[in-house]
Amino acid sequence: MTPELLAQILARTPGWAEQAAPAGLDDTAVAQILGETFKLAEETLAPLASTADEAGCRVEGGRVRTPEGYGAAYRALGEGGWLAADLPEDLGGMGLPLALHVAAALPMEGAALPFMMLPGSSRAAAFCLAANAPDLAAEWCPKLAEGTWAATICISEPDAGSDVGRIRTRAEEDGNGWRISGTKCWISFGDQDMTDRIGHLLLARTGAPEAGTRGLSLFLVPNVTDAGASNGIHVERIEEKLGLHGSPTCVLRFDGAEGVMIGAPGRGLPALFHMIERMRLQVGTQGAGVAATCAHLARSYAEDRRQGGAPSAPPVALTAHADIQRMLLTLDARAMLLAALVLETATVLDMAKEGDESAAALAPFLLPLAKTFGGEMGQESASDTIQVLGGAGYTREWPAERYFRDVRITTIYEGTTGMQAQDLVLRRLLKDDAALTAFLDRAKTAPGSADLTGRFAALVTRLREAAPEARLYAADAVLRAAWVAQSAVLAERLKGISTESDRALDLWLAQGSARMAMAESGVDWALTQSA
Amino acid sequence: MTPELLAQILARTPGWAEQAAPAGLDDTAVAQILGETFKLAEETLAPLASTADEAGCRVEGGRVRTPEGYGAAYRALGEGGWLAADLPEDLGGMGLPLALHVAAALPMEGAALPFMMLPGSSRAAAFCLAANAPDLAAEWCPKLAEGTWAATICISEPDAGSDVGRIRTRAEEDGNGWRISGTKCWISFGDQDMTDRIGHLLLARTGAPEAGTRGLSLFLVPNVTDAGASNGIHVERIEEKLGLHGSPTCVLRFDGAEGVMIGAPGRGLPALFHMIERMRLQVGTQGAGVAATCAHLARSYAEDRRQGGAPSAPPVALTAHADIQRMLLTLDARAMLLAALVLETATVLDMAKEGDESAAALAPFLLPLAKTFGGEMGQESASDTIQVLGGAGYTREWPAERYFRDVRITTIYEGTTGMQAQDLVLRRLLKDDAALTAFLDRAKTAPGSADLTGRFAALVTRLREAAPEARLYAADAVLRAAWVAQSAVLAERLKGISTESDRALDLWLAQGSARMAMAESGVDWALTQSA
Repeated sequence: MTPELLAQILARTPGWAEQAAPAGLDDTAVAQILGETFKLAEETLAPLASTADEAGCRVEGGRVRTPEGYGAAYRALGEGGWLAADLPEDLGGMGLPLALHVAAALPMEGAALPFMMLPGSSRAAAFCLAANAPDLAAEWCPKLAEGTWAATICISEPDAGSDVGRIRTRAEEDGNGWRISGTKCWISFGDQDMTDRIGHLLLARTGAPEAGTRGLSLFLVPNVTDAGASNGIHVERIEEKLGLHGSPTCVLRFDGAEGVMIGAPGRGLPALFHMIERMRLQVGTQGAGVAATCAHLARSYAEDRRQGGAPSAPPVALTAHADIQRMLLTLDARAMLLAALVLETATVLDMAKEGDESAAALAPFLLPLAKTFGGEMGQESASDTIQVLGGAGYTREWPAERYFRDVRITTIYEGTTGMQAQDLVLRRLLKDDAALTAFLDRAKTAPGSADLTGRFAALVTRLREAAPEARLYAADAVLRAAWVAQSAVLAERLKGISTESDRALDLWLAQGSARMAMAESGVDWALTQSA
Repeated sequence: MTPELLAQILARTPGWAEQAAPAGLDDTAVAQILGETFKLAEETLAPLASTADEAGCRVEGGRVRTPEGYGAAYRALGEGGWLAADLPEDLGGMGLPLALHVAAALPMEGAALPFMMLPGSSRAAAFCLAANAPDLAAEWCPKLAEGTWAATICISEPDAGSDVGRIRTRAEEDGNGWRISGTKCWISFGDQDMTDRIGHLLLARTGAPEAGTRGLSLFLVPNVTDAGASNGIHVERIEEKLGLHGSPTCVLRFDGAEGVMIGAPGRGLPALFHMIERMRLQVGTQGAGVAATCAHLARSYAEDRRQGGAPSAPPVALTAHADIQRMLLTLDARAMLLAALVLETATVLDMAKEGDESAAALAPFLLPLAKTFGGEMGQESASDTIQVLGGAGYTREWPAERYFRDVRITTIYEGTTGMQAQDLVLRRLLKDDAALTAFLDRAKTAPGSADLTGRFAALVTRLREAAPEARLYAADAVLRAAWVAQSAVLAERLKGISTESDRALDLWLAQGSARMAMAESGVDWALTQSA
C-alpha cells in the first residue's frame, strides 16, 4: 500500500468529499499528510517495533518499564498532531475528520501494532471524556492530545471478560468522593514510563450484582491524584504473550483508589461505548495496517528473490510464478478492501455524529465488520506473507512472523468475534430493519454486488423466522455473509484505479459467490441445531 | 482425541484389517500400544516441549546444545521401540505396519512437534538406507532404531530451496572416496548432543549444473568418520524462528567431508524420495497431532471455564454457548478427519510397497493431501483453540500459542503447499488417469460423497483442456478440491462412532458443497489468467 493508493481509496469513500471540503483537505493536503505518516511508520516506528518485540516490557520496582525509544516516539506522535487530529480544536485537536485520522494511522498500526495501543486508548478516552464529562475533558484532552498524559480502558476482570455484567470491582462513596477497589486485567499499557500521568477509564459496580451491566458506572481513575500523590493502583503482573511484546498487558489492583464518576450512575457501559467504538475501529485499522504492510513486504520480497525457472537459465524472480502471483493478488485485495472498510466506517461514524440517520443506522453494521475482518484478514495476510517468503518468513530475520504473532490478538480483544456476531446479528439485524436497509441502500451504488447483497438479505430474512437457539448458532455465519456482501460492494467501488489493482479485485470478486455459499451453509446447519 | 477414538478410526481404515492380522495386532494390542503413547505424550513429552520452547537450542563451542531432558527422552523413545516399530526386524525394528507407527506417533507429534523432528528424520533415513543401501542399512538402521545414532536430511541451500535443481554443494572423488563441500541450510537437528553419531543424508552435485536434478547424487555423510574423527562439518548458525524453538534449525558447512554414495550417481533425488515420503507423512501427522491436542485442550478448557448466562444465576460453562459448541465441533471434525487421512495414507503406502497397484496409484494422491491439509488444518485448529480460550489462549500460560507458532512451519518445510499442488495436480492428475481412478474407486465405498467426488473429477477434466499457464494458476484450487472430496469420503466413513462425533462430521459435511464451490471458483478464475 502506497500513500497514493490509500489516498485514492479515501477519495472513493462515500461521504469523504463532503467532510474533506470544509476541513480544507484537498488532494494535495491529503497526499502530504499520508506521505508523512508512511515515512514516520517506515523510518521510526517499524525499527522501534522490531527492537521492542525483542526487548519486551518488564516490571521494575512496581512500575512498568517500556522498551527504549517508546517515550520519545510517543512525544513525537503528540507533537506531530497524530494522536488526536480529529479531536475538536478547543480540546487540543485539529477538528479534522475521523477518516483522515484513520488513513494517517493505518501505516503506523501496520508498522508497530503493539506501540499503537497507547495512542489508541488515549485518544479513545479523550473522545469519551468529550462526550460525557466536559469539565474533565477540558483538563485531560489537551494533555492526551499532546501526549504528555495517557489513558487506558479497564473493563475485564479475572472472572468477567466478555461477561461484563459480572464485574465485581466496587466503587464506594466516602466523604470526599468515590473510592475504587478491585482487580482489572488485560489492561494494555496499564502502567508505563512514557507519560507524566495515566488516567484509567474504568467500569466499577455501584449497584447490586444482580443488576448486571445496569449496576455499572464509569470512572476516571488517575494513577496520580490531582494533589500529586500515588493513587493506590498496583501492577500485579504483566502477561507473557504470543506477541504484542511491545505492549505491556497489565493486571492492576485498585486499593481504594480515588475516582471521578463520568456520566450517570448505572450508565457506565453506554458512556464507555464512545471509547469502545473508537477502539474497535482501531482494531480494524490494525488489521488493515498489517494487511497493507504484509502485501508490501511479500511483493518486495518476491520481486527480489530469485528461484526456479529452467536450470540452464538464471533463476527468475518469485513474481514470475503463477502461484506466487495468486498469493500476492490476494494480499493486495485484502489490503485494499480493509483500507476501504475502515475508511468507510470512519466517515459513517462522523456522519452519524452530525445527525445523519442513515449513517447512524449503517455505523453499527460496519463497525463489527471492521473489527472482525480487519483482524481475521490481517491474520490471513500475515500467514500468507510467511508462505510467500517460505523458510525465511518463518525466521526472525523478517518481520512477517512478528505481524503473525501480534495480529492474532485482534479477534479477541475489544470484543471477540463471537461478541461481534451477537452484536451485529442478534442485536441489530434481527431487531429491526434499520441497519439492513441502510446497507442495502448504499449497496445500490455498486450494482455489480446485487446478487450477493440480495443473498445476504435473504439470509437475514430466513433467520428472523428461526428459533432463538438456531439464531445463536447462525450468528457467526451471518456475520460472514455480511462481510461477503460488503466486501463485494467495496471491490466494485474500488475498480478502475489501476490494471494491477483491478486484477486483485477481480480475484476477490470471482470467489464472492462461493464465499456466500459458505455462509449460507453455516446458516443451513445452524437451523438443524437445537438446544 | 482419546486412544479409543483413534483406535476406532484406525479400525475403519481400508486395508488396516489385512495388515493388522498378520502382525498380530488385535484390538487389545492396539489399545494397549496407543494407551502407552498417549501416556508418554502427556506425561513426558508435553512438559518437555514446554520447557524446551522456553530454553531453546544454542551453539556452544561449535556444537549444538539441546534443551535439558532431550537426550533422555530420545533414548526412552528408542528403548520403547517408538522410533522404528515399522522397520524390519533384521534392521532393528518390529516389522509392524506403518499405520500402527503413525497412530502411535500422532499424540507425540501433537505434544512435542519440535522434538519429534529428530525421530522423524532418523527413522525416515533408516527406510531410505534400507531401500537403497543394504550394507549401510545393516550398520546404521539398528543404531537409528535404538536411538543411539540419528540422521538428518540435507537438501536446501541458501540459493536452492524448492528449486532443488540449483543445488551447488559438490561431491568429488579423491583416492579414498567422496568428499563433500558446500553449505546446507534448514537442517533440523543438523547438530545435537543427544546421540553418539549423526548421519546426514545429503544431496550433492556430481554432474554438471545444467543437468539440474539429474546431476545430483545422494550421500551419507556422518558427523564422525568410521575412524572416529571429526568429519569437517561446521555449524554456521541456528535460525531464530517464530516457533520450533525446541528444534535446532542449522546452517551446516561441509568442508571436504567424507561421504558414501547411496544408490546410483545422478539418481540422488529418486533415492532420497523414500525419505521425503516418510517425512511428508510425518508433517501430516504433526498437523493431525496438533489438531487432536488442540481439540482436547479447547474442550477441556471450555468445560471448566464458566462465563455468561443470566446475571442472577451462577455463570455457565463455555460449552453451554452455541458459538463455542460450533468451534469445538469444528475442532473435533478436523482432528478426526486428519487422523483418518494420515492413517489411510500410511496403509496405502505399505500396500503399495507390497505391490498393490491401486494403492501405488492412490499413494501420491493422498500424500500431498496429508502433507498440506495436516499442516493447514492443524494451524486452523491451533488458531481456533486460542479463540476458544480467549485472552488466556493468547498468553503463555496455555500451550495453544506454542502450537500456533510451531505448526506454522508445516506448510513450508518438506515441500511448500505450492510444491504439493504442482506435484499432485501437474505431475499426477493431469498426467494420466491412475491417481484419479484409484481415488474414485475407493470413494465408491462412501456413496454419500458422490456429488463432491464427481465435481472434483469434473474439475480435473476441465483442467486437462486448459492452457499450461492456466494450469499453474489452478493447481492450488484443484489441490483444495481434492481435499474437499477426500474429506467427504473420510467423514462418511467415520460416521456412527458416537453421537457427538457424528455431530462434528455433520457440520463438516454441511459445508462440503460450499467448500467445493470455493475451489471451483478458483479454477474459474485461473482459466481467465494468461501469462
